[in-house]
Amino acid sequence: MSGIIDLEVLEKARHSGSIGFVETRYFTFATSLNEFILDSGEKLGPITLAYETYGKINNQRSNAILILHALSGDAHAAGFHNGDIKPGWWDEMIGSGKAFDTDKYFVICSNVLGGCKGSTGPSSINPMTTKQYGLDFPIITIKDMVNAQRHLMDHLGIEKLLCVVGGSMGGMQALQWAASYPERVRSVIPIATTLKHSPQQIAFNEVGRQAIMVDPDWRGGNYYGSALAAKGLAVARMIGHITYMSDISMSEKFGRRFKNGKIHSKFGAEFEVERYLHYHGDNFVRRFDANSYLYITKALDYFDLSNGRTLYEVFKGIKAKFLIIAFKSDWLYPAYQSKEILKVCKLAGIEATYCEINSSYGHDAFLLEIEEETHLIKHFLKKVFNGNAGAENYGI
Amino acid sequence: MSGIIDLEVLEKARHSGSIGFVETRYFTFATSLNEFILDSGEKLGPITLAYETYGKINNQRSNAILILHALSGDAHAAGFHNGDIKPGWWDEMIGSGKAFDTDKYFVICSNVLGGCKGSTGPSSINPMTTKQYGLDFPIITIKDMVNAQRHLMDHLGIEKLLCVVGGSMGGMQALQWAASYPERVRSVIPIATTLKHSPQQIAFNEVGRQAIMVDPDWRGGNYYGSALAAKGLAVARMIGHITYMSDISMSEKFGRRFKNGKIHSKFGAEFEVERYLHYHGDNFVRRFDANSYLYITKALDYFDLSNGRTLYEVFKGIKAKFLIIAFKSDWLYPAYQSKEILKVCKLAGIEATYCEINSSYGHDAFLLEIEEETHLIKHFLKKVFNGNAGAENYGI
Repeated sequence: MSGIIDLEVLEKARHSGSIGFVETRYFTFATSLNEFILDSGEKLGPITLAYETYGKINNQRSNAILILHALSGDAHAAGFHNGDIKPGWWDEMIGSGKAFDTDKYFVICSNVLGGCKGSTGPSSINPMTTKQYGLDFPIITIKDMVNAQRHLMDHLGIEKLLCVVGGSMGGMQALQWAASYPERVRSVIPIATTLKHSPQQIAFNEVGRQAIMVDPDWRGGNYYGSALAAKGLAVARMIGHITYMSDISMSEKFGRRFKNGKIHSKFGAEFEVERYLHYHGDNFVRRFDANSYLYITKALDYFDLSNGRTLYEVFKGIKAKFLIIAFKSDWLYPAYQSKEILKVCKLAGIEATYCEINSSYGHDAFLLEIEEETHLIKHFLKKVFNGNAGAENYGI
Repeated sequence: MSGIIDLEVLEKARHSGSIGFVETRYFTFATSLNEFILDSGEKLGPITLAYETYGKINNQRSNAILILHALSGDAHAAGFHNGDIKPGWWDEMIGSGKAFDTDKYFVICSNVLGGCKGSTGPSSINPMTTKQYGLDFPIITIKDMVNAQRHLMDHLGIEKLLCVVGGSMGGMQALQWAASYPERVRSVIPIATTLKHSPQQIAFNEVGRQAIMVDPDWRGGNYYGSALAAKGLAVARMIGHITYMSDISMSEKFGRRFKNGKIHSKFGAEFEVERYLHYHGDNFVRRFDANSYLYITKALDYFDLSNGRTLYEVFKGIKAKFLIIAFKSDWLYPAYQSKEILKVCKLAGIEATYCEINSSYGHDAFLLEIEEETHLIKHFLKKVFNGNAGAENYGI
């Protein structure tokens, strides 16, 4: 995109409350080889995390919020990168006067370990071989992602987070933060998420992985420098997109309409819903690494916060307040899974609020129901911030 | 399987009310080349349909029931083929004293046009080339399947069917029978089905088709005589299986259990749910043709009973009685779609009963909720048979 367009876009964006241009930064730790011990016992290092920050840390360092992204997300949650026409993935939620108000809070978003958006993952160079890791990259878990983020918080000098928040896989990281580092988290907002991946959730991920791995271009994960492992990844993404929408939202968006009025072409995409899936599948392969898709979906499937203990044991040490958000038409992470979070919070004496938003958008709702989420989150954060940090910090 | 085992199995089967050994028969029509005109305007012929019959036609020829199968079904609905250990796919519903009581009724099950179980389909020999049709096979619709079955009914001398019945795609054929041949159908039992395929249903089929078509072994449909187009078809079947079960039934059946207690193997199937999907995916490719999967899913996606008219216009000429069955946990063909059938029946003054069975099996319920279905169907058929054909036929 040309610089001229950028300025126009930026001008518009400023009017709509965007935080403007931002840059992704990089933090590297475990710089001695294999210094970071993973959940599996395997070792990894050095590790780089890509992250962005918005707003300013206050003097007490008490206003930091960590935003955690979903499967295909990245560190670029808000504002514009130089040359981009579209802002970050949760731009409507982050900025002056927004849910995560950058006039008050210091907002951090970190890309996950295992990803392909600037953080160390299977497409990174393995220092032992000076080639991409591929499948030599170790299996990682949600706990590993959170442990890596803990290093980033240390680096940023943030002892205690005002809030950890995320939707979908971001919600699992938020829950894991509260479980792994209860003394470092003052509030948790798990959105459209679960305490453990269900067999249906595992099943959808597994067919996505199979679609990738039967693609001959995948070459056992050693496709770097060759053709993209594109076809299988596109199919995996198409499956994903079906699960992100709802039956209703698909009916409203596409109906049974044909694209171009053409019918009876043999097995080409002709229904609008097919074109939509193809479009998003094809786009995805240009911005995502097939191996990262395997590693991250596997981390999702392994996710079980109880991890051999009882949930009560996991939650009893947690002091944080919870705002749990679910969406009525989300059938990938159904509301009953969010109610299970509420149940264990209540059991463990944790102050928790549960909100089920009456949305038809399915799982995608966590990215789309901005007004409802803003209302809930703004109020919740204000209460947590004022309650624990004193009203005197309110105007910062 | 050895003959000795067969006899043991048969002995057991007889005790459980099986109708015993059966044979698939074949009926060929449109024997002049391209005699059969398809919904699309294209021509096809000769056409063979594989079918089975159970029980006996009565003197009035008024006791014939046509059973219509789902996507991967076949003509073998009941009894045992010589050498088989497992009976037909709806064996528990068909036989002496069962829902479709072969002491009273003459039961027919026909494989669909486009299939790969003995009926003409893309894996059949194209008489014009003496090679398999592959993608030269014309696009077919549910209406074409039904029109072909009409030829079979003529051949069997059945002017009027006591009942047309089927689950899923079988239900669509049943509905199409009533719409296309209202004067030949006395009752309809559409089970777990819909008046038209929704965008979500289309979407799941499309990713299945994509999984097949990106498999290099598919070779643009010209894989006959080469390696099976197995990997893509297995992925398609895995997607299918997820949609046939429910979140609850998967949780009850598999939980988060690992097979062999082994974890952290890299992207091999390790959860029980993954093994289940792989097992069924791998089995499927040995018994189903990838091109048939493409053609039949496309027929499903094109299905819209209204077909440019209003539903009222389609239904107003129908005299048949309806028993509409849906299942609470079926999210692939949700109950609201069955309620839409009920609604248009009521609008058109058709006598219709709607039953929503409280099952946790998901879409698979139509194959599993035998007791509930038997109760409903037995009673309904008795009423239709006695009401229209006279009580004197009851004991036949």
